[in-house]
Amino acid sequence: MKKNKASMKEKRKFTLQALESLGEKTYQQIENIEFPSVEMPSRSTRNIHYDETLKQYILGDRSIKRSSRNIRHIRPFTQLIWIARFVHELSSINKTSTLRDVFYSAQAFDINFKDQQESDNIITDLETVLGHSREDFNVFPEERSAIFGDLTIEYTVPGYEGNRLNLTSHPDGVMIGPALTRADFVETKADKIIVIEKGAMFTRFVEEKAHQKFNTILIHTAGQPQRATRHMIRRLNQELNLPVFIFCDADPWGMAIAVTIICGSANAAHLRDLATPEARWMGLYSTDIDLYKLPHERLKDVDIKRLYDMKKDPRYKEEPWKSQIDDFLKHKNKCELEAFSRYGLDYVVKSYLPKKLEELEE
Amino acid sequence: MKKNKASMKEKRKFTLQALESLGEKTYQQIENIEFPSVEMPSRSTRNIHYDETLKQYILGDRSIKRSSRNIRHIRPFTQLIWIARFVHELSSINKTSTLRDVFYSAQAFDINFKDQQESDNIITDLETVLGHSREDFNVFPEERSAIFGDLTIEYTVPGYEGNRLNLTSHPDGVMIGPALTRADFVETKADKIIVIEKGAMFTRFVEEKAHQKFNTILIHTAGQPQRATRHMIRRLNQELNLPVFIFCDADPWGMAIAVTIICGSANAAHLRDLATPEARWMGLYSTDIDLYKLPHERLKDVDIKRLYDMKKDPRYKEEPWKSQIDDFLKHKNKCELEAFSRYGLDYVVKSYLPKKLEELEE
Repeated sequence: MKKNKASMKEKRKFTLQALESLGEKTYQQIENIEFPSVEMPSRSTRNIHYDETLKQYILGDRSIKRSSRNIRHIRPFTQLIWIARFVHELSSINKTSTLRDVFYSAQAFDINFKDQQESDNIITDLETVLGHSREDFNVFPEERSAIFGDLTIEYTVPGYEGNRLNLTSHPDGVMIGPALTRADFVETKADKIIVIEKGAMFTRFVEEKAHQKFNTILIHTAGQPQRATRHMIRRLNQELNLPVFIFCDADPWGMAIAVTIICGSANAAHLRDLATPEARWMGLYSTDIDLYKLPHERLKDVDIKRLYDMKKDPRYKEEPWKSQIDDFLKHKNKCELEAFSRYGLDYVVKSYLPKKLEELEE
Repeated sequence: MKKNKASMKEKRKFTLQALESLGEKTYQQIENIEFPSVEMPSRSTRNIHYDETLKQYILGDRSIKRSSRNIRHIRPFTQLIWIARFVHELSSINKTSTLRDVFYSAQAFDINFKDQQESDNIITDLETVLGHSREDFNVFPEERSAIFGDLTIEYTVPGYEGNRLNLTSHPDGVMIGPALTRADFVETKADKIIVIEKGAMFTRFVEEKAHQKFNTILIHTAGQPQRATRHMIRRLNQELNLPVFIFCDADPWGMAIAVTIICGSANAAHLRDLATPEARWMGLYSTDIDLYKLPHERLKDVDIKRLYDMKKDPRYKEEPWKSQIDDFLKHKNKCELEAFSRYGLDYVVKSYLPKKLEELEE
């Protein structure tokens, strides 16, 4: 197993250093009898660009300054510094928190957020200032995705430091939560990653032993994946050099899941470590509905509107997206992963999967 | 550890026997030159009653007959027999499926369901005929709840038979999916179960070592718990004789979660193994909002309407429900579990939990 990345412990040190240097800079400004301020790239839509080389949304050159000299900036500047202090404490003791926790925790310090939207925004500001995602400073969503397969991880969280777990240990899948997100990868014999939109198909793959037959690690995203899951997929790809294949429903929402994993989203244009540009969409394609004679439903108006929006989105400009969007609009059908059950519960693993992997690996 | 229950392997045998005796009865009828038929309790609202002793909704004495003699019954009767055949095969090879899978699988056999609603209904019919819930015959929802704590389980699923796992092995929680649902309980030193509505608070409890400090197994339900989770809570209570405490947001939706775990729902009036009548609601109470000076929001119209509905619901007739509903309606406030963060991240485990458990254990 070749590893390309700093350990999670080192990474945590980098985040703490970034937070501390923000604090030092602020103190320095005060000592120099300057009004403390921070500068960060603007996240306004005018400053979000699609980068053809990176195949991701990135922020442009515009930047904004939050200065305590400006009376309108004092509030968000103070909130930003408080949140930096809060997550520094969190990271120092290696505890985790959620966006909602941060909102409530602020009240104990008389830091007023008028609602959670305001505190969420300031957390995104801090991500932008530091260039670290909030998971790096231990603020997590409610996670529900899971992973299964031959990968041994080593925990770095308090009480579990040095403990190892092989991710085949629980056949329902190992939950991707704060502890797994911060674990180091130790060893794997797998040679690929298959990412699946739905828990039902994930369980089908485990029961049909797809992990052994195709020597793969399986991930289910529970719908549109949270950022911690996207980050995990990227780490598996980058640190372990494993190719990633994404398997979703044949509808615009399935395509959007695949593209978010591959190219990221405009919302996260200020962050670089969430996308996996090398990941491949393995299906279900619109053309698969016909090819495999799968039970299907008609596209609804909302689906068709979404497809036309996708035609304007730079992330869908290349193949196979382009021709599949056209095929969807031509046939106006959609189909769910479970539709393979029509041919028996083992068909998808026995017949569809080997054929599709062969096609993609050509 | 005292165990009160048949092993999962024995349980699976009972389910298979029930399915086989349904098949035998049908063959017998044909051999006797009778039109095959089944009888089952009616699930119409007029036949759903609240049983004060069981503290559950149950079905009354009305029953309905599905006979292949009646031309309007041929379709649902055939569908029922096909589903019984399908889940018998599933259980025999110990694979699992979902409601959606069953719907699609039927198409391979030219069994027509006009939509999934129709196949879901027939699966509920089969539950009613057999008196077994669909999880017993391996039809599962997409599960996302999790469990953590000192409990060693032994798998019964293919490829894992005899493997054991201690549920402290993964600090993000062990997913309650088809494999865990069908596992046997082997050993525990825990003396109680705490069920938590939200993943964030569950993670807080794990990080604050509530499982060690209070010698408890922790479960998070991810909102309103799926039936597999309710069944797991019941098994922990019944098989291991452990008291269960339920910890939810202080709002009508949190109360509904607690009551569904304790008393079950009208939808599942035909099943007996889902409710845990001995479980206790430990909070958040409406009165806790004032007592602990927790950050809160105002109740919305939809919350207030729900509270008035609850006043008419027999499951909420006793204490503490009755006075808490009145207190909600008096103060018109609601509050989330995360509100405890106002007093620091460890407050809920260090201060609230011991006090509340002491109150409830009196």
